[in-house]
Amino acid sequence: MSNDKPIRRITIVGTGVIGASWAALFLAKGLEVVATDPAPNAETRLREFVASAWPALTRLGLSSGASQSKLKFTTDLAEALASADFVQENGPERVDFKQKLYGQLDEQLPPDVIIASSSSGIPMSQIQPGARAHPERCVIGHPFNPPHLIPLVEIVGGAKTSAETIKRADEFYTSIGRKTVRVNKELPGHVANRLQAALAREVYYLVAEGVVSAADVDTALSWGPGLRWGVMGNMMLNHLGGGPGGIEHFFQQFSGPMTAWWKTLGSPVLTPDVQQKLIDSVHAEVGSRTIAELEAERDEVLLGLLELRTKAAKSAQTKSVEPVA
Amino acid sequence: MSNDKPIRRITIVGTGVIGASWAALFLAKGLEVVATDPAPNAETRLREFVASAWPALTRLGLSSGASQSKLKFTTDLAEALASADFVQENGPERVDFKQKLYGQLDEQLPPDVIIASSSSGIPMSQIQPGARAHPERCVIGHPFNPPHLIPLVEIVGGAKTSAETIKRADEFYTSIGRKTVRVNKELPGHVANRLQAALAREVYYLVAEGVVSAADVDTALSWGPGLRWGVMGNMMLNHLGGGPGGIEHFFQQFSGPMTAWWKTLGSPVLTPDVQQKLIDSVHAEVGSRTIAELEAERDEVLLGLLELRTKAAKSAQTKSVEPVA
Repeated sequence: MSNDKPIRRITIVGTGVIGASWAALFLAKGLEVVATDPAPNAETRLREFVASAWPALTRLGLSSGASQSKLKFTTDLAEALASADFVQENGPERVDFKQKLYGQLDEQLPPDVIIASSSSGIPMSQIQPGARAHPERCVIGHPFNPPHLIPLVEIVGGAKTSAETIKRADEFYTSIGRKTVRVNKELPGHVANRLQAALAREVYYLVAEGVVSAADVDTALSWGPGLRWGVMGNMMLNHLGGGPGGIEHFFQQFSGPMTAWWKTLGSPVLTPDVQQKLIDSVHAEVGSRTIAELEAERDEVLLGLLELRTKAAKSAQTKSVEPVA
Repeated sequence: MSNDKPIRRITIVGTGVIGASWAALFLAKGLEVVATDPAPNAETRLREFVASAWPALTRLGLSSGASQSKLKFTTDLAEALASADFVQENGPERVDFKQKLYGQLDEQLPPDVIIASSSSGIPMSQIQPGARAHPERCVIGHPFNPPHLIPLVEIVGGAKTSAETIKRADEFYTSIGRKTVRVNKELPGHVANRLQAALAREVYYLVAEGVVSAADVDTALSWGPGLRWGVMGNMMLNHLGGGPGGIEHFFQQFSGPMTAWWKTLGSPVLTPDVQQKLIDSVHAEVGSRTIAELEAERDEVLLGLLELRTKAAKSAQTKSVEPVA
């Protein structure tokens, strides 16, 4: 098995929202993409998505050789897999479906081709038994929507995934500018969705109880702690929150209040009534703005923030490799 | 009582980390500031802080008439309160101390002067009984650290706070570019600290259990959901996460998985062992980088993000008031 083989051609299995976004990203990174999906009009929808994503990808910086013309589409799975260097699977979230699919992929692909699943809901340990010959090359490579804009990729192995597969998947995603996270245990929601769920639980509680409106809880998040989470993670911010004493001082000062707050956090139940209350409050916040207008607002700032972050990361890297005189 | 009196002169009571940052902000907005604090060297430390904050405030845009020379300092409380239009109190977080202080403030200030407390830990209902004559003008105006950079201000009344005080405090903070949130019930941590606590609980759990390192959980947050929270709040993002079907479709699709994730979220206990594990993982993430270097990294991106957000908010506002042809 040659593990030094460069990854140049990606096969995308399943071109729904996530698969199409992956395709756009891989093309922007100068890779060849072969996509397959049995749905009617899948090719048209995929090509339209890639074209619509291209201006944002261009703004973030296309790699040498990047071209939409490197996208091929076929409804024939075997044809799609021929000469694949890496497979990104985005099929329906059903264990039986994925197991059967992994059986086919495993039979048709050379053993050194990694099969990465975008699954957010099914642990790899439940999927990979389908890949009878080479379950060790199957791994979760879970993006954060939309993958062509948000850099995070969570890498999680199943019981039979090899350390080599995890390492190579990590290197591949990193080589195309993704920010990878190694998740050491299979947990529902991996990491990022768990963080979202933890936050949303308190948000829904506060709005459902009438403590704040949806508009106000959004202001509190996005003009408060969210601004900092767009810049750095919780642990590093805690380190800086401790002042000159760093993380040690942070815990001395805040583990008391933090523990007290935890005891009072809410546990809402999403009954139809609670959902309606949240929905009504969101509509009051949205007013007459259309979804397209709000998306444009979000993506304009998001692209700007990605540019800022990328520039800052490069500058920090340059500093850290400066020769010490 | 004249409630139309413009607020031009702010008295800052307590010039620790929060009070000094408020002082810098008010000065940058062109207001006059009189500060008081009994601590030794308080004036020197305050003036040094304001000078160090000035370049960032200049980059974000000084208001007409903004000047560090409009800062006066006195250790005499009565002198500090003379001709105050608004008081921002940042004293020690002790009920007995604050009650006594509010008694003095209440006696020495005309009844139309609002007394706003930066308290994160003590509800106004417990503080305002000290202000016997006019408890209705006392209100929580809780900033998010550091106030001169982060725009959020949470406004919470106590049992005796008047609706007029809440309205005037809101208008004042809004007039100097703050993003205000009306919190309708007194809860520990108001809103933003509760959201932080909810997120941190899961972060600590995942690191303490060895699911991810501090570095990786920070990557997951700051290159994943955090990027979006730096742009928009949870409820609006849910609305967009539902696609063309908006928030209604979002709940149809995600209330199931969300509820399932909630059931598996962690409840860590911050024992000395757990704290040590978190501290060790943070140090592995930090490496040789100093706190000053990391702060500079954080603030550079934070200032850029604030510029982006402010520009986007202005552009959205301009669009919404455009005459319909």
